[in-house]
Amino acid sequence: MDYYPLDTTTVTEYVKTRPALKDFFPEDATLVAREVGDGNLNFVFFVENADDLTNSIVVKQALPYLRVIGESWPLTQERVRYETQALRKQYEAAPGLSPKVYDYNDEMSTLIMEHLREHEIMRFPMVARKRFPKFADHISTFLANTLFYTSDLYMTGEEKKKYMELFTNEELRKLQEDFVYTNPYMDSEENNWNPLVDDAVTAVRQNAELKIAIAEAKRAYTTHAEALIHADLHTGSIMLNEEDTRVIDPEFAFFGPMGYDIGAVLQNLILNYLSHYGHTPDKAERESYQAYILETVAAIWNGFAAKFDTLWKENNRGDAVPAKYWEFEGGEEAFAEYRRRYILRLLRETAVHGGTKFLRRMMGIVSVWDISSIEDEEKRAVAERAAIAIGSRWLLEKESFNSIDDMLAIVKEETG
Amino acid sequence: MDYYPLDTTTVTEYVKTRPALKDFFPEDATLVAREVGDGNLNFVFFVENADDLTNSIVVKQALPYLRVIGESWPLTQERVRYETQALRKQYEAAPGLSPKVYDYNDEMSTLIMEHLREHEIMRFPMVARKRFPKFADHISTFLANTLFYTSDLYMTGEEKKKYMELFTNEELRKLQEDFVYTNPYMDSEENNWNPLVDDAVTAVRQNAELKIAIAEAKRAYTTHAEALIHADLHTGSIMLNEEDTRVIDPEFAFFGPMGYDIGAVLQNLILNYLSHYGHTPDKAERESYQAYILETVAAIWNGFAAKFDTLWKENNRGDAVPAKYWEFEGGEEAFAEYRRRYILRLLRETAVHGGTKFLRRMMGIVSVWDISSIEDEEKRAVAERAAIAIGSRWLLEKESFNSIDDMLAIVKEETG
Repeated sequence: MDYYPLDTTTVTEYVKTRPALKDFFPEDATLVAREVGDGNLNFVFFVENADDLTNSIVVKQALPYLRVIGESWPLTQERVRYETQALRKQYEAAPGLSPKVYDYNDEMSTLIMEHLREHEIMRFPMVARKRFPKFADHISTFLANTLFYTSDLYMTGEEKKKYMELFTNEELRKLQEDFVYTNPYMDSEENNWNPLVDDAVTAVRQNAELKIAIAEAKRAYTTHAEALIHADLHTGSIMLNEEDTRVIDPEFAFFGPMGYDIGAVLQNLILNYLSHYGHTPDKAERESYQAYILETVAAIWNGFAAKFDTLWKENNRGDAVPAKYWEFEGGEEAFAEYRRRYILRLLRETAVHGGTKFLRRMMGIVSVWDISSIEDEEKRAVAERAAIAIGSRWLLEKESFNSIDDMLAIVKEETG
Repeated sequence: MDYYPLDTTTVTEYVKTRPALKDFFPEDATLVAREVGDGNLNFVFFVENADDLTNSIVVKQALPYLRVIGESWPLTQERVRYETQALRKQYEAAPGLSPKVYDYNDEMSTLIMEHLREHEIMRFPMVARKRFPKFADHISTFLANTLFYTSDLYMTGEEKKKYMELFTNEELRKLQEDFVYTNPYMDSEENNWNPLVDDAVTAVRQNAELKIAIAEAKRAYTTHAEALIHADLHTGSIMLNEEDTRVIDPEFAFFGPMGYDIGAVLQNLILNYLSHYGHTPDKAERESYQAYILETVAAIWNGFAAKFDTLWKENNRGDAVPAKYWEFEGGEEAFAEYRRRYILRLLRETAVHGGTKFLRRMMGIVSVWDISSIEDEEKRAVAERAAIAIGSRWLLEKESFNSIDDMLAIVKEETG
């Protein structure tokens, strides 16, 4: 099949030709399509059964226009492939916590998946102080399962190395490597920051210890192929409601350090915490929601740590360290101690990568909407200054962290 | 071209058909071939010009017989491809320190390369206490250049990630992962050790701290894709004479931790040091040669560290940390401090991987000839016991090492 760009008319015919969707819609259904993408890189359509709007799908297609400008087109196509592969693996590892993939077609660069009709992007309701009581449990399961099942603890060495070949993803990775770990901390024209925190930004860019710590973080991000990570797991990549949570948009996925994904989730929640100095003038309301966020952060880490440990104990299938290795007098305790140290290392790496991401959002190419939507520059500066302080301390004090409480103590100290 | 197995007759015709060798032999030369391989996995032929024996090449061909037994044949073919790729890259990075590749033919699974007529495998003359005054300089250049030029410090992120696709090498890597880092320390039928050191072997297998340290070392070996490493750089993979040094047989090559290659070299030299308790009964002779080995080990590390640092300063071309990142008041010192810590980390990782390799040679599937050729079990036990003690301490005391002298102090203490 040759590629052609879909539109709201042809997409309804197209989906009927896909074998994987044969039974999805009733044979005589009238399908209606809406285009909802932002048109930057992909078309995104909702295709719905006119008689039953819950009977619907999302169709994502790489944009064809980029063919004209040449080199970018393969990148855009590959992006859809990376997203599909990661969605499938994540759904397999953590069922029901990402949209289900129904179909992928390489020739047409289409990904067809579950339509999340009842969910909203997390970032926005959090600015409105909405609470999601099941979120900590859901996201800690997503993290524990996707990271464990794609690591050497579960996959055999040969499985993992062959599977890694599918995730070279060299172009999107370069974006993250440069825009998270290098460019924000040096003179680079795309950088953008609030002039009211210029002193704090300048101090970061001239702090030798911090620069060395960030360079080390970049080295780890670039070279430590621990597990298939989402690699862009901010609250704009989470769709949810009170009952259900889904992680979307994993096109940056590659084999990297586990702490990066965990750090992204925790750091985005804390950025939201800080944003309420701008969004929520009422002190009692603000403090109540901020307390909820810190409880959520603690519950995510502690939930992750417990679930990851249990998965490991119960599914020690990979080549990393076979059960037999621990068969000696005291071996059970040694295995427990090894797991404890492994997870403590993940905590500290969560601090390192999360800490770097605090900084990059304050002085790099792009902030987060939670913060950037605070119109009053002075109020925004309060949040930004705290974010810079917390990020710097997470990076510099990582070796002293033994529990999530140590990391949260810094959040409290810098906002107290 | 369909595959056919070469023999001493057909190989002389075959090499004349290879375009890359067009000008290598005179047109009217009479070529003579000898088969010199051990016949396990490959044919190895020397093909020589009968009128000028210095005009000669080595032809390596994957064995065809394995076709019969099925699955192993692709492995054997891939092995020749990995060896060729690594030899080419290593020669490019460190010219003249490995055999030059003349030709590779995928269909025929042949690798044709420089014939090292004047060199011997390092392990054997070292048992005879032969000295190689230029070796430390040569091998430290090989290590510094091959590791630096294939790391993120020199390659761009995209170059490195695309190039890594050529080195999945999942089957040979599994051999190293299991036989270096896991199997020797647990009940595994292929393990083999001197009954006279059974107590020391048992102690290692039951030492919780040591087992945790080795599990950590395996994790690093498996996941840290720092540079293209040789991954089997013992003194059996080095051919040399007083003037010239070449590193051969890199079929295990993959992107792994730099410390593994450095550790392999240093640890093999020290195993030879220990072997002289068996091979060299004369105390003065033994001590003189042992002193030479320790000087060589120190010179290799110090040479590596200085050369790596200089390469980095002068060729900071990769995406790791661009020069601009260090452009601030005190930035030059910060960059120097970052390099210092990076190289100190390499020293400690050299201790970790080298330490593990001491242990695996004493209690795993295969020893080294230096040690195994000591016929007197009691004398061999002296060397083996020291090797186990040194390896254990390199693993357990790594955080205290600030220079190669700290590692060598342990060698002296355990043999004093």
